[in-house]
Amino acid sequence: METIVLKFGGTSVGTIERIEAVAKIIKEAKKEAFPIVVVSAMSGETDRLINLAKEIDDNPPKREFDALISTGEKVSAALLAMALHKAGVASKSYSAAQISMKTTSQFSKAKIINIDFTKIEDAINNDFVPVITGFQGITDEGDVTTLGRGGSDTTAVAVAAAMKSLRCDIFTDVDGIYTTDPNLVPEAKKLDRITMEEMLELSGQGAKVMQVRAVEFANKYNVPVRVLSSFAPGTGTLISLEEPNMDDMEKAVVSGIAFQKDQTKISFQGVKDSPGIASSILGPIAAEGIEVDVIIQNISNEGRTDFTFTISSIDRDVVEKICNTQLQDLDFNNLIIDNNVGKVSIVGVGMRSHAGIASRAFQALANNNINISMISTSEIKITLVINIDDVNNAVKVLHHEFELDK
Amino acid sequence: METIVLKFGGTSVGTIERIEAVAKIIKEAKKEAFPIVVVSAMSGETDRLINLAKEIDDNPPKREFDALISTGEKVSAALLAMALHKAGVASKSYSAAQISMKTTSQFSKAKIINIDFTKIEDAINNDFVPVITGFQGITDEGDVTTLGRGGSDTTAVAVAAAMKSLRCDIFTDVDGIYTTDPNLVPEAKKLDRITMEEMLELSGQGAKVMQVRAVEFANKYNVPVRVLSSFAPGTGTLISLEEPNMDDMEKAVVSGIAFQKDQTKISFQGVKDSPGIASSILGPIAAEGIEVDVIIQNISNEGRTDFTFTISSIDRDVVEKICNTQLQDLDFNNLIIDNNVGKVSIVGVGMRSHAGIASRAFQALANNNINISMISTSEIKITLVINIDDVNNAVKVLHHEFELDK
Repeated sequence: METIVLKFGGTSVGTIERIEAVAKIIKEAKKEAFPIVVVSAMSGETDRLINLAKEIDDNPPKREFDALISTGEKVSAALLAMALHKAGVASKSYSAAQISMKTTSQFSKAKIINIDFTKIEDAINNDFVPVITGFQGITDEGDVTTLGRGGSDTTAVAVAAAMKSLRCDIFTDVDGIYTTDPNLVPEAKKLDRITMEEMLELSGQGAKVMQVRAVEFANKYNVPVRVLSSFAPGTGTLISLEEPNMDDMEKAVVSGIAFQKDQTKISFQGVKDSPGIASSILGPIAAEGIEVDVIIQNISNEGRTDFTFTISSIDRDVVEKICNTQLQDLDFNNLIIDNNVGKVSIVGVGMRSHAGIASRAFQALANNNINISMISTSEIKITLVINIDDVNNAVKVLHHEFELDK
Repeated sequence: METIVLKFGGTSVGTIERIEAVAKIIKEAKKEAFPIVVVSAMSGETDRLINLAKEIDDNPPKREFDALISTGEKVSAALLAMALHKAGVASKSYSAAQISMKTTSQFSKAKIINIDFTKIEDAINNDFVPVITGFQGITDEGDVTTLGRGGSDTTAVAVAAAMKSLRCDIFTDVDGIYTTDPNLVPEAKKLDRITMEEMLELSGQGAKVMQVRAVEFANKYNVPVRVLSSFAPGTGTLISLEEPNMDDMEKAVVSGIAFQKDQTKISFQGVKDSPGIASSILGPIAAEGIEVDVIIQNISNEGRTDFTFTISSIDRDVVEKICNTQLQDLDFNNLIIDNNVGKVSIVGVGMRSHAGIASRAFQALANNNINISMISTSEIKITLVINIDDVNNAVKVLHHEFELDK
């Protein structure tokens, strides 16, 4: 049977009224294909649970922390199954344990390994809409894990990939992907389509609509994803698998501006330049499951080099500890840790065939007295690390410069 | 290793402050034997979840209802494991699913079948205090079930029985078992010891300290149980396995007065008296897991008899439906359903060898103009069904009559 995965975020199931509205959306979707539902916790619930834990211990045992915060999705899944039942749609809720959603054992940052689909298929064959708890899994030992903030998106895409679903619809409180954050730039425009690669870059750079890991997953398994609002009808933004055609490329060289404020820049100055230096610095950090972004290594000068990278500021304490313990034997002159930075990225598949985007961006920022401290480029993205205080202005300048408001 | 099961009710883990106090009690108890902990949900949490469900549907699908309300214990178990960790006691929380606590599949009224102790024993061998979610289990299919209100007591006693623990300590917000409810009779006295049979009768008749099924379980598997307060130090009331010695018996013929107000009396008048009449009436009711108490059948008169029994008023709707469907083919004249009744019970092992307790009770009630509508006696208990409005007064009269305040 053709299936469609529908994922509802925290605000979409934030109240009983919202849950009942979501039940109606699912009932309607059942006309297109058989729905498999993935839910987040009711908005505020995960934070409530985290606060209870923090009242006891700022750094509680991770196994218990995951056991605690994974209860929120069990609540919303059961409530949604009840609301579906009331709306005349037979339904059963499933926890990650019940469908053996196996993950790695990195608590709070676990990665999905595989899913046992027997129960979901049984449910579908008996005309029960399965409602699955997002955000969580279990280890081989049966311990509950969580996938990190926004992990419900990953659950949804993983289920869609494994079930070879028609599409994965991510319902949220925004009606699609915009050229940049409309809260910051009121002229920002909704995109009807976006390529998976662009979405990946936009998401990774802080477009908060969808979790980056989920987009990667969708990309890897060719799952078509649509982002849309559960609050208002609309077609959202389709994250397409196909390349845009040449007409589209001519029209939009740059498709969006992303930004992220809570960044920390870590700089090892005067590191002894020897083969494997990058992996000896980044290896212990990656081992903790921490994502490292813009990485820059200067040209070596007298056998020494500067090695700089950025991390999300929430990982700062852990990275600083690693720098001061596992990396203390490293031969370097200075360690500089700077919280005071943000990232702005220009994203667009069309950039591949257009030279001059970078210089045009640098010129526009220079005209507005915005200083660039790090630059990293890929085929479809240019990322600039700048002072945190310049981020808002840089986004506005670039959005206007590339005529995204037109 | 010698183990002791410690069970903490909802008020005992009602706040983070209380959870931290409970961690200290467990740390102290570890000096006596290795603790295995069973917890209820934080007080108010189960009601909060029930209210969310009721907002959707007054009669939600039972599988989903149990999936929903079982999350409360997962929260308190994880929080208590964190608090133990902070207090320097290594600990791991376990859900019913994680220790394969198998139950029957009667949702909301499931009965424990067996427990897989591998994980608990592993935890103990590695010096982790296991904290187990009370009140819940799983079916063979992996669906979550709950054991009914107060089911955490049953979980605790079942664990103690299976682990052959030294004792099961039930921590609650009262400091022991009283001769009757001190809220109603201020002169009520705390009992240091009580026999299992007396406790069973007191509990079954509405002494709300411990769930009746838990006491039955303890009785069946010879688990010594102690009821005590987590709020104030004390030795509580030990529910002993041994018979009281003759000295005790001479001292206290009656050990307590129990009462229960939310009762419904069901009366089939003029039933055709034939073999198996009782089971044909009570069979369908028992099949729904509903407990039937005082059962009275009159002597047959011209081939017809009156068959009367009481149930808890919360089961009234279900029982009434059974009477009007499955029992409608029964040959009888009248069905009378009366919500307006309560039960008062005089309990005491010493009653076995003392005649005259019943007549003394009847006389005392008559002197106070209290009419008795049904009487049921066992070796250690006399239960009287009376008008709901007379219950408070009857308890006071009987408590005084049998000098329980002395």
